[in-house]
Amino acid sequence: MKKDKISSAVIRRLPRYYRHLDELRRSGIVRISSSFLAKSMGLTASQIRQDLSCFGCFGQQGYGYNVERLRLEVADILGMNRKHTVAILGAGNLGRALMENFPFQSNGFQLVAAFDVDPELVGKELSGTPIHHVDSLEEYLRNDPVSVCVLTVPAGVAGDTARRVAECGVTGIWNFTNVELPQQDMPGVQIEDVHFADSLLTLSYMISEEEP
Amino acid sequence: MKKDKISSAVIRRLPRYYRHLDELRRSGIVRISSSFLAKSMGLTASQIRQDLSCFGCFGQQGYGYNVERLRLEVADILGMNRKHTVAILGAGNLGRALMENFPFQSNGFQLVAAFDVDPELVGKELSGTPIHHVDSLEEYLRNDPVSVCVLTVPAGVAGDTARRVAECGVTGIWNFTNVELPQQDMPGVQIEDVHFADSLLTLSYMISEEEP
Repeated sequence: MKKDKISSAVIRRLPRYYRHLDELRRSGIVRISSSFLAKSMGLTASQIRQDLSCFGCFGQQGYGYNVERLRLEVADILGMNRKHTVAILGAGNLGRALMENFPFQSNGFQLVAAFDVDPELVGKELSGTPIHHVDSLEEYLRNDPVSVCVLTVPAGVAGDTARRVAECGVTGIWNFTNVELPQQDMPGVQIEDVHFADSLLTLSYMISEEEP
Repeated sequence: MKKDKISSAVIRRLPRYYRHLDELRRSGIVRISSSFLAKSMGLTASQIRQDLSCFGCFGQQGYGYNVERLRLEVADILGMNRKHTVAILGAGNLGRALMENFPFQSNGFQLVAAFDVDPELVGKELSGTPIHHVDSLEEYLRNDPVSVCVLTVPAGVAGDTARRVAECGVTGIWNFTNVELPQQDMPGVQIEDVHFADSLLTLSYMISEEEP
């Protein structure tokens, strides 16, 4: 499938498509029109048709989309069938929250290990995932390469830790540290930042609009 | 300031503007051109000028923007000076991660309380924030209304908890539960969802693009 020059706005919408399609499937809905999908996602029908046609997904005139077929198609585009592996760097509160509650598996990722420096944690397992010492990071990744590292270390060591795993050939960093990582020092590594503050400030804007 | 009909895409970019302006200010930069700001944010200069003009912020021909003045202006638009208060519902790993590490203050919010059911936590303080029992939620909010509740409870009680605080007059819910909250049951409450999965799936797409 041709995926050249897909705008980042369309890419950002794809996980939302997946989420909505998965919910529709679970509700037992078999097919949908672009206008129905549009309404449930707060988009226009023509935007939906345009987005999906970027990836070669075309609805059928008078039928719409088959929910399950479209869901599998979107999953495939998102790389959810690539058997990506993931390791968590930093098993503090946030790292542990992800280990215990985030459904890596149903998002196409296998959580294989976590790393920390805390002697209380190292050597233990949490929700079935072993926690290793950060000192063994390079050795571990040499023997068992992972696709993505989740960065939930303290901000002070974020840059160094990112560089270490980049040198070991990790292809993606999921960055929760609020530190701007030096992309130029890590060629070939995709960085996805989770900025809690951006989200809270958007909410701040919305509630301020409602105030007198 | 007139803020009618600002598109949600522009609103979503505002916190990023704030973040970049704050970094520029900390680096001691006093004024910037729209093209410099554009480069640091990965946007075009004309998009920056257009975005900011939506809010009545105009750069000066041949001068650009005064960093600190623009930062304060964006902070004002985002409602960062409204003295919003916030309470955390659910002091599990994620709730505690936010209590201990998220800079509510520098985002214009005052964290006043947390709520949980765990007897090990109730009655204690964490990073200076008291943890109350969820049973006292309504009574607390009646006496000390808060602007925003952070929803970090287990998914099973997310809807109920949201409805309870909505009835107490909370104006915003920052929802980390991955549960779609029934907006129609909560008129006047703004909901901002943090979807970790959307972020990870975007990264999944990006690394899959790089793979053979």
